[in-house]
Amino acid sequence: MTAPLHEARAATGRGRALPDNQQGMRRRNLGRVLHTVSAEGPLSRAAVASRIGLTRAAVSTLVDELIRSGLLEELGPERPGRVGRPGSALAVSGRGPAGIGAEVGVDHLTACVVDLRGRVRARAVRHGTNRDRAPEPVTRQLTALIREVVADAEQQGLWAAGLALAVPGLIARDGRTVVSAPNLGWHDVDLGALLPTEFPLTVDNEANFGGLAELWLGDGTPRDFLHVSAEIGIGAAVVVDGRLLRGTRGFAGELGHVPVEPDGPACPCGGRGCLEQYAGEEAVLRAAGLEPGEDRVALLAARAAAGDDAVRRALRDAGTALGVALTGAVNLLDPETVVLGGALSRLAPWLLPSLEAELARRTAGPACPVAVSRLGPEGPLLGAAHSVVRAVLDDPAAVAERA
Amino acid sequence: MTAPLHEARAATGRGRALPDNQQGMRRRNLGRVLHTVSAEGPLSRAAVASRIGLTRAAVSTLVDELIRSGLLEELGPERPGRVGRPGSALAVSGRGPAGIGAEVGVDHLTACVVDLRGRVRARAVRHGTNRDRAPEPVTRQLTALIREVVADAEQQGLWAAGLALAVPGLIARDGRTVVSAPNLGWHDVDLGALLPTEFPLTVDNEANFGGLAELWLGDGTPRDFLHVSAEIGIGAAVVVDGRLLRGTRGFAGELGHVPVEPDGPACPCGGRGCLEQYAGEEAVLRAAGLEPGEDRVALLAARAAAGDDAVRRALRDAGTALGVALTGAVNLLDPETVVLGGALSRLAPWLLPSLEAELARRTAGPACPVAVSRLGPEGPLLGAAHSVVRAVLDDPAAVAERA
Repeated sequence: MTAPLHEARAATGRGRALPDNQQGMRRRNLGRVLHTVSAEGPLSRAAVASRIGLTRAAVSTLVDELIRSGLLEELGPERPGRVGRPGSALAVSGRGPAGIGAEVGVDHLTACVVDLRGRVRARAVRHGTNRDRAPEPVTRQLTALIREVVADAEQQGLWAAGLALAVPGLIARDGRTVVSAPNLGWHDVDLGALLPTEFPLTVDNEANFGGLAELWLGDGTPRDFLHVSAEIGIGAAVVVDGRLLRGTRGFAGELGHVPVEPDGPACPCGGRGCLEQYAGEEAVLRAAGLEPGEDRVALLAARAAAGDDAVRRALRDAGTALGVALTGAVNLLDPETVVLGGALSRLAPWLLPSLEAELARRTAGPACPVAVSRLGPEGPLLGAAHSVVRAVLDDPAAVAERA
Repeated sequence: MTAPLHEARAATGRGRALPDNQQGMRRRNLGRVLHTVSAEGPLSRAAVASRIGLTRAAVSTLVDELIRSGLLEELGPERPGRVGRPGSALAVSGRGPAGIGAEVGVDHLTACVVDLRGRVRARAVRHGTNRDRAPEPVTRQLTALIREVVADAEQQGLWAAGLALAVPGLIARDGRTVVSAPNLGWHDVDLGALLPTEFPLTVDNEANFGGLAELWLGDGTPRDFLHVSAEIGIGAAVVVDGRLLRGTRGFAGELGHVPVEPDGPACPCGGRGCLEQYAGEEAVLRAAGLEPGEDRVALLAARAAAGDDAVRRALRDAGTALGVALTGAVNLLDPETVVLGGALSRLAPWLLPSLEAELARRTAGPACPVAVSRLGPEGPLLGAAHSVVRAVLDDPAAVAERA
């Protein structure tokens, strides 16, 4: 099912609305055609026309323009034996514009290229901690990875329509400044000045891109949900009617700093008894008597799977704390579902029972269902790359001008 | 400043989007003209054209249509002495369609009529408790009040374009069924079957209408805020980018059931340590050693103003609990401001200091500012009536068809 274009555009909360005039309408209709073929193709011109409620003639003009821009391609005549003149099936191009997604994780750097069909066409990773490293060497290494995947994609006939970067921190609404990424030790860093300038850049919080990935790529994900993810901190993406709720400063979704015990331990955020003090990775490692190492989540998952009582108890208590914080969030937002994504999805077997019990215990009627993302830790990277792809589908005329 | 029409329409979250074609564009432009004159009038045709970016000729056609429908009127030529041909100033009509607002409160019933200029033209109140009264006698009395204000308005040349009713409870997304109003003792009540059928009806939660009133009528209210109100329960309206966040079932904004002490006293909602157990009217009366009576808020305000230590302490503790719950809400939603409305606005002098201190104590940077609504307990009633008025401004062609 294709979302109406104006909604798709608005999903990232960054799109620029097209004017409500003839020219704007034409551009929106180009996007509708491209979205429809992307979501349901291959489709004939007639099928596209019936799906979006325009005449066959109007759709043909739009399709021709999209073919000239290299965004759609004809797969040749449909198989014979059908009634009427054979139509040529249309598909979104596997060449042309593509989205670069990148991620600065606490323990890794990643870059990938996703084409208009949504396939990952190039990918590169660099493992190693980024904790308390200065932004310059980190972005230099990331730039090398980006150039590597872009070169690989260019060999395949693709070109980069934009770069979107996921960072574990608070990002200003300018979409380029990291206001604070405590687990990297970054404060007020303008990434626009440190990354390649040949692609339009969007920087966003990793939880936001994780939530958008769930919205766009998840299995039957509804349009109203709360996506909870973790790297070291705990973040959430609030998706309302298919749009990401960003907040005034761009800081919405700070579930990790919802108080769960008003007089609990002090938190670096300035609060007390914040969720992160009970369910953050470091709190769980501490409760389980383990030392923080390189792949902390893998360690917790391995120990829990092996039946380590201390680890299982620590995860159970973290699930309970998550349940308290989520009760508040569910009462405020009334989402259709809560999705556990990112690193949390790997720990779900040991978090979920106590989390769900706590939600149920605090709810008179049926409790809000909790699902586990199948995207797991890949969510933020894919969400970043797909945000560029979707911007192309939303307003193909803009990218055609730049091609 | 006039909000773009598609946003105004979406603000209540109930509007039907117009199709993206010529006819839809014309209807949207009629709304733009009417909204502009409503927000900034009296204005000449030329001034309207420059404000909304259409040609003078296009605006004149739209204006003529709005005058024929009785929605705009010409005030006569502008004062002489200006350069150029004198234009006639346009104003929104003080006759024609109007909105009926009504409220079922725990202690009162109210109805009013608001004209397109936003003025209250008729008003009727009935005091007396509605707690645990059956819906039928309550809606019979309310219907009498509604017919009284409508008759009064008709005498003044107005006609009712719709009825919007505020209820202290959870309302289904059908906009007519009360799922649960615990302080009235109502469950699964279809108000559509009990109220006059000659006007289109919308039932909504009083906190939602209170929040919309703040958005539309507040003094410099931003487009992202959290409106907290109370009658007996504590509710909130979450307004994001000028739209009301309703939630999947229509139950968003249940701030009163955010846990502030995970092991606190049991709450009828099924939870434990919910905000209402610390800052709800009954909890505050209990903490202050007072008996629940008819005008509980007035009693608390009078005692606090007189320096009653027990009452002041109870309100201070309620403010602290509000601060804990709002810290969570602010972390999740990142609003520009929190507005205390409804009954809470009368208690603000004694709630605010501890509330603000708690928010500040739990926030590393500058805390989210807290403002007090100047609409006070009238907010939900005015929000209801104005929701009907705004629906007329959004799509004047729809009301012209019905006139």
